[in-house]
Amino acid sequence: MSLTRVQSFCVSLDGYGTGEGQSHEAPFGHAGDRLHEWMFATRRWRETGGQPGGNGGVDDAFVQLHDPGVGAEIMGAGKFGHPGWHEDPEWKGAWGPNPPFHTPTFILTHHPRASIEMEGGTTYHFIDASPAEALDMAREAADGKDVRIGGGVTVIRDFLAAGLIDHMHLVVVPILLGRGVRLWDGLEGLEENYEIESVSSPSGVTHMTFTRAGL
Amino acid sequence: MSLTRVQSFCVSLDGYGTGEGQSHEAPFGHAGDRLHEWMFATRRWRETGGQPGGNGGVDDAFVQLHDPGVGAEIMGAGKFGHPGWHEDPEWKGAWGPNPPFHTPTFILTHHPRASIEMEGGTTYHFIDASPAEALDMAREAADGKDVRIGGGVTVIRDFLAAGLIDHMHLVVVPILLGRGVRLWDGLEGLEENYEIESVSSPSGVTHMTFTRAGL
Repeated sequence: MSLTRVQSFCVSLDGYGTGEGQSHEAPFGHAGDRLHEWMFATRRWRETGGQPGGNGGVDDAFVQLHDPGVGAEIMGAGKFGHPGWHEDPEWKGAWGPNPPFHTPTFILTHHPRASIEMEGGTTYHFIDASPAEALDMAREAADGKDVRIGGGVTVIRDFLAAGLIDHMHLVVVPILLGRGVRLWDGLEGLEENYEIESVSSPSGVTHMTFTRAGL
Repeated sequence: MSLTRVQSFCVSLDGYGTGEGQSHEAPFGHAGDRLHEWMFATRRWRETGGQPGGNGGVDDAFVQLHDPGVGAEIMGAGKFGHPGWHEDPEWKGAWGPNPPFHTPTFILTHHPRASIEMEGGTTYHFIDASPAEALDMAREAADGKDVRIGGGVTVIRDFLAAGLIDHMHLVVVPILLGRGVRLWDGLEGLEENYEIESVSSPSGVTHMTFTRAGL
């Protein structure tokens, strides 16, 4: 069964998935790296960056789940690049020549353009579509594997609101950002549709998993 | 050293300390009992109500910390009684003839009245004061013991914003209330002043402790 999944999506204790003032230099605004420091310390993350060491505990266990079994990703325009990227027809995204997706990757944008094949298996497709339409396309591309909903905040929220997420791994980071984009708005009662587990990590973050009831 | 403490204050995953529509019948509004069910299942809670059984795990361990060492409580008018209670001069609070505080208890209100001595050691004092002024009074009454800040939401937030809380035990309950009174507004960067620990419980809640740095 092909699942629609969220992996390692980080929110502050006050529910912000990104800070205020996002830009090319500061993709998470005034949050800086604070939502993701726990991740950078894991063995898996360091390995991906060619570095030795890193912790191999519960944080690493969850980071290890990011890629296996995933056949396509859907992301928002803001994850693909800084505001205004669509005005540059040569722009190939913020993720370098060999992006870390390695699958068909669908970018939700009101400015579609021709698909771009990158190194390492990532092909960017630019679509102006509803969450359900995007999921149909991504699921077909995933060829039986899972579809990862990669963010940003409003994309996760829209897919949750549309009832399209089967499994979500959320990481609550004990900081108060105070401003930015909030994940939880308009999702009252979401817990009724999910089995929820929480496990805190020695790093200070709490991992939460939302598994669709009856799955 | 006399500490200023918060114990077992519950918030939803989206940061609400109470739901919308608070009334005499529904003190937490549309949240009902959902923020406190974990607490009702503990041994300590059941013992207080004269019932046998209950769980004796981490939830109970934290509930057990509510009273020992506390010499006074400060609470908001909304915890004392339903909106409009001050219009009834005979009203003695929502907590019965033998309230569960057993210490001097300071009620923040714009409608002060004479103090009321209740059964079991609780004396209600009604004060129109700033957080710092209220804390001075409560600390003197606590006679070397700790002062508990009992809520509601805006009282906790005001004391946090004023930098007056030494230790806070917060319980994050995995529900999305969507509306009500939010705890975290205006507290950006609060984590810089505290050592924070998180521990998740088999009941599904996550206990967080905030201990003032350098304490």
